[in-house]
Amino acid sequence: MSENKEIEVMQSVYDKNDEVAAKINSALTKSGIYAINVMGAPGAGKTTSLIQIIKRLTDVIPYVIEGDIEADFDTKTLQALGVKAIQINTGGACHLDSPLIGNAVDELGLSNGVLFIENIGNLVCPAEFMIGEHAKMLISTVTEGSDKPYKYPLAFEKADIIVINKCDLLPYVDFDEEFFMKGVRALNKTAPVIKVSGKTEEGFDKVVSWIMEKVK
Amino acid sequence: MSENKEIEVMQSVYDKNDEVAAKINSALTKSGIYAINVMGAPGAGKTTSLIQIIKRLTDVIPYVIEGDIEADFDTKTLQALGVKAIQINTGGACHLDSPLIGNAVDELGLSNGVLFIENIGNLVCPAEFMIGEHAKMLISTVTEGSDKPYKYPLAFEKADIIVINKCDLLPYVDFDEEFFMKGVRALNKTAPVIKVSGKTEEGFDKVVSWIMEKVK
Repeated sequence: MSENKEIEVMQSVYDKNDEVAAKINSALTKSGIYAINVMGAPGAGKTTSLIQIIKRLTDVIPYVIEGDIEADFDTKTLQALGVKAIQINTGGACHLDSPLIGNAVDELGLSNGVLFIENIGNLVCPAEFMIGEHAKMLISTVTEGSDKPYKYPLAFEKADIIVINKCDLLPYVDFDEEFFMKGVRALNKTAPVIKVSGKTEEGFDKVVSWIMEKVK
Repeated sequence: MSENKEIEVMQSVYDKNDEVAAKINSALTKSGIYAINVMGAPGAGKTTSLIQIIKRLTDVIPYVIEGDIEADFDTKTLQALGVKAIQINTGGACHLDSPLIGNAVDELGLSNGVLFIENIGNLVCPAEFMIGEHAKMLISTVTEGSDKPYKYPLAFEKADIIVINKCDLLPYVDFDEEFFMKGVRALNKTAPVIKVSGKTEEGFDKVVSWIMEKVK
C-alpha cells in the first residue's frame, strides 16, 4: 500500500473524529455540561487529582469517564466515593476518540454538571484527538522532570490549564521550575500553571476555582 | 472511508514494519551488535538509566539511538560523555518504527557492541512495533504507581527485562511492590525485575550483568 494511501486514511480518521467531537460538544453544551479532557503521562496522578477536585466541587454535579487500555481500578475507586463514573477500555488504543466518548456520554445520561474525561496515560496522542471537550487539563509531575514541555510540546501547547502534581516530592527530586516554565510559556502564553500535591492536598482549591469560573 | 479500509491500512503498516525490523535485526547480528529497545513512560529515567549502564560496561562499545518527538537534550548529554549517539525526532509520532531505525543504524556505522535504542516516552505504542531489537528493556518507576502492569499490559508482557527506577523515593510514595509483581508475573513469567535508582546508582550492576550475559 502506498504512503499516500496511508496519509489519506489518517486524514480521514482525524476528519471523522473531529466531526463527531463537534457534535458531542454541542450536545453537552445544550445539556449544561462543561467537559474537561484530562491528559497526562502514566502515573501522573490523574485519578488522584480528580478525587481531590471532585470533593471540593460545590453546587455542581461531577461525572467521570475513565479511559484505560485495560482494567477499571480508577472507575471503582470513584464509584466507591459516590461519583457517577463509567469505564472505557480501549483494548490497546493509546488515546480516546470521539466515537468512544459519544457512546459513554449516552450511557451516563448527563445534565448540568462537569464531565471529567480521563484520557489514556500518554503525553503524545491524546493531544491530537478532540473528544467533545470544552477544555483540556494537562497533569504533569515534578518526578517526570522539567524537560517535558520541550519533549512533548503538543500536549503543553493545547492545554487550557496545566497542573504540576507530586509537589510534596520537590525536596527529593531535581525539578528545575524555571526551565519547565520557560518551556511551557514558549508554547502556551495563557494557561494557568498550578502546583498541587495529591498527597498533602495543597493547590487543588486553585484548580477548582478555575473550573468554577468556567462553569458558572 | 470504510472501517475495513482503515484496518487494512493498519495491517499493512504493521507488516511493512516487521519486515524491515527482521532485516535490521539480521544485519545487526551479523555486525556483532546486540540491540536493546528501551521503553518507558515519559520521565521514567530512560536516559539516566542508560548513562548508569553505559558507564559500567567493560570490553563492549555502547551505541545509542535516542528517540524523541522533539528536542535533543538526551543525545547531547550522552555525546558529552563520549558516547556515540544520534537523535531521531519523530516530529509527532508516538513510537519509533523500523524504517526510522534502519536509517539511523546506517548513519552510526556499528560493529561489535551494544546498541541501546531509547524509544519515545510512552507505555503503549512502542511495545507494538519491532524495531530490529534483540531484547526489550522496560523501565518502570515507583513514582508511577504499582498498577501500571494492569493498565499497560503489553509493554510488561513483551519485556525481556524490567527495571524499576527511582527506588530512592520509596520512603515517600505509596508503591505496593507485591501488587506490582503480581501484575507483572500474570503477564510475564520470566523477565528479571531489577530495582534501581538513577540517583543513588544502586541496582545497575545487576542490569549490566544481564546485558553482558546476552552479549558474550
